[in-house]
Amino acid sequence: MPDMSIVANGERVLADLHALRAIGTYKTGVHKPTFSEPHMRSLAWLTERLPDAGLAGTIDGIGNVIGTSSRPGPKLLAGSHLESQNHAGWLDGPLGVVYALEAARVINSDPSLTGAVEVAAWCDEEGHFGHFLGSRSYVGLVTEADIDAARDRTNGKPMRQALRDAGLAGRARVAAQPSRHIGYLEAHIEQGSLLEGGNLAIGVVTSIVGIWQYRIVFEGEQNHAGTTRMSARKDAGLALAKFCVAIDQRFPVASSPRTVWTTGRITLDPGAPSIIPGRAEMLFQIRDDDPAVIARLEALLLTMAEEARTAGPCGVTVERIRTGTPAMMDSAFQDAIEAASIAFADGRSVRMPSGAGHDAQVLATIMPAGMLFVPSIGGVSHHWTENTGDGDIVRGAQVFVDACSRLLAR
Amino acid sequence: MPDMSIVANGERVLADLHALRAIGTYKTGVHKPTFSEPHMRSLAWLTERLPDAGLAGTIDGIGNVIGTSSRPGPKLLAGSHLESQNHAGWLDGPLGVVYALEAARVINSDPSLTGAVEVAAWCDEEGHFGHFLGSRSYVGLVTEADIDAARDRTNGKPMRQALRDAGLAGRARVAAQPSRHIGYLEAHIEQGSLLEGGNLAIGVVTSIVGIWQYRIVFEGEQNHAGTTRMSARKDAGLALAKFCVAIDQRFPVASSPRTVWTTGRITLDPGAPSIIPGRAEMLFQIRDDDPAVIARLEALLLTMAEEARTAGPCGVTVERIRTGTPAMMDSAFQDAIEAASIAFADGRSVRMPSGAGHDAQVLATIMPAGMLFVPSIGGVSHHWTENTGDGDIVRGAQVFVDACSRLLAR
Repeated sequence: MPDMSIVANGERVLADLHALRAIGTYKTGVHKPTFSEPHMRSLAWLTERLPDAGLAGTIDGIGNVIGTSSRPGPKLLAGSHLESQNHAGWLDGPLGVVYALEAARVINSDPSLTGAVEVAAWCDEEGHFGHFLGSRSYVGLVTEADIDAARDRTNGKPMRQALRDAGLAGRARVAAQPSRHIGYLEAHIEQGSLLEGGNLAIGVVTSIVGIWQYRIVFEGEQNHAGTTRMSARKDAGLALAKFCVAIDQRFPVASSPRTVWTTGRITLDPGAPSIIPGRAEMLFQIRDDDPAVIARLEALLLTMAEEARTAGPCGVTVERIRTGTPAMMDSAFQDAIEAASIAFADGRSVRMPSGAGHDAQVLATIMPAGMLFVPSIGGVSHHWTENTGDGDIVRGAQVFVDACSRLLAR
Repeated sequence: MPDMSIVANGERVLADLHALRAIGTYKTGVHKPTFSEPHMRSLAWLTERLPDAGLAGTIDGIGNVIGTSSRPGPKLLAGSHLESQNHAGWLDGPLGVVYALEAARVINSDPSLTGAVEVAAWCDEEGHFGHFLGSRSYVGLVTEADIDAARDRTNGKPMRQALRDAGLAGRARVAAQPSRHIGYLEAHIEQGSLLEGGNLAIGVVTSIVGIWQYRIVFEGEQNHAGTTRMSARKDAGLALAKFCVAIDQRFPVASSPRTVWTTGRITLDPGAPSIIPGRAEMLFQIRDDDPAVIARLEALLLTMAEEARTAGPCGVTVERIRTGTPAMMDSAFQDAIEAASIAFADGRSVRMPSGAGHDAQVLATIMPAGMLFVPSIGGVSHHWTENTGDGDIVRGAQVFVDACSRLLAR
């Protein structure tokens, strides 16, 4: 049994999560796009609470908050993110940040322990301006040119402007210090229903899927919707619809049981009711933790595009715009989470891959990393109805704090 | 043979069209959205030229220009529009306005004739804020509430604001005076390739198709694109794509050879690459000049929606948002255009329906109306490459002016 004095304070964790939910509330969720006023207020809220955990921190030049400890001994980095998808849930991000804050509060002041938990809120995990800009900046993968080019995907606002408006333009970006941390631990809601369906309390993440993303463009002929005979048309929108249906028919044969694929956005150009679309574009995404499966599906996608081009009447081009290598979670971190689950969750844990991307996959490129999941009610994610029961939230915090103390005590 | 002194001045017509093309130029076409600076400058250009044609006029409170004559005798109304679709052609609209202006210049000062041609430029024929707002205002079909509700379909700007920005907010709207006109004549580019394909110079319009427009909404379940298994998804975007493909397969059987249908806009909600669309919407349009065909296709559309609902997993609703009764062109107007084509175009004319909507269909609700078409190169329409040969433009002007004088002389 662990030292029972080193235990998360469940009421404090719930109070903190509700305080963050009260900033940028949307129905029962929140609306906190990156660099929005409620996002910046959430970062300020966190920064003000860091001293309670023996940490000093501020908001850096890309919108990360990183609280550091001057305590001697090993340091474990822990955190998640505070911005949300548009009109989305209250726990996606804040849960991991508050667990990290709670672990720091409990552990960093305990005289029986050495070392400290350091807390991070990574900016823009939700990809309003890019993907994982905050954590990628921290590990040294974001250039000034990347920031110059980045725009808000909802309204097209340049990131430089957004940084100015948020008061971050003049600030330095904080970079990782080599060997400072023994690793990175992140908690998150599952965003699926495997835990709930199996009456489990904790998911011990084994790997994070790779995400491959494609821009698929159909080129037809823009023309008048009243005077162009059906037989004379080159309708790029119809070509796109046929392609979506073909993917639905042919991908299941080539995929693995865990593969998922999604067309998240479709744009017809010019998009007017009385004009035949001359150009149509879709954003298409494939996720799997096996690179061989992804390679097979990408080959199928290119074959299908070639077939569509040959069949006509529209041109088709496929451009890969994001390549995500799957990330493996450290086995010692998995063991620590599992041991903590035995201590605080009756062993109701399962090892599972993550189908969603997380900052942990970025941190995993420079240090050992681990993740734990708590259940999501109905598996709902990226929607304001997203939720987790209070019991599961508190149990997850206890497992998280215990796992941190085990990792620091190794 | 007509009096050969009453002939359009081809060079003057071409010069006027090029003057309008120089306002808001985009590549070889123009970009003049309704109430934009180049649109307002085009209206001012026309207003300044009205006195040359013996007309007095100004820009009214909805952006119409209507030039009136104090000459005794019958009055024929003629015109078209001066705004364009976004990044579109130089003749769609201006051709008909300049022909009307030329007819007024030639006829209104001729001592051998009585009566006059009056010139109109109807606002927003291209439907940036509604449909046929200018001509519908003139015939009394637009309410203050319609204007309160109207917004720019490209950027969402309220029409009231656009009217204020264009300096039109305080002005009165000009309404039709009962029995003032013997009818309305409009010229337009064909926006199709029937004339060009048959080496014909003039299309004598017999009817203008009705346009029925629908908002079709698919309701699924918004969820995370990484953590939601394929079998558990309710993807509204995929449901929409399947519906588009089904329309493509089933509409040909129930339609007439002239029917056309178009999906001009698709919106996935929320439209993010990592979120399964919970809602998807398409704007769908059917055009035919036979109401029985439209009724049959609407019934098919509703049946298909019911089948899609039953098959699941997404809900489907079909809402008709525009109902356009086909408009018949006056037979005396058709005869006058045909006689003018014999005099000025070697009889190379054909009677044909219009697949596009035009202000003439609105004017036809209160007076006899007619339309003539000139050829479009390659049938291109609503695109900046739209064009017509100079010879066809001049020949069309001569036929138009002659048809006007025949109608006034009846």
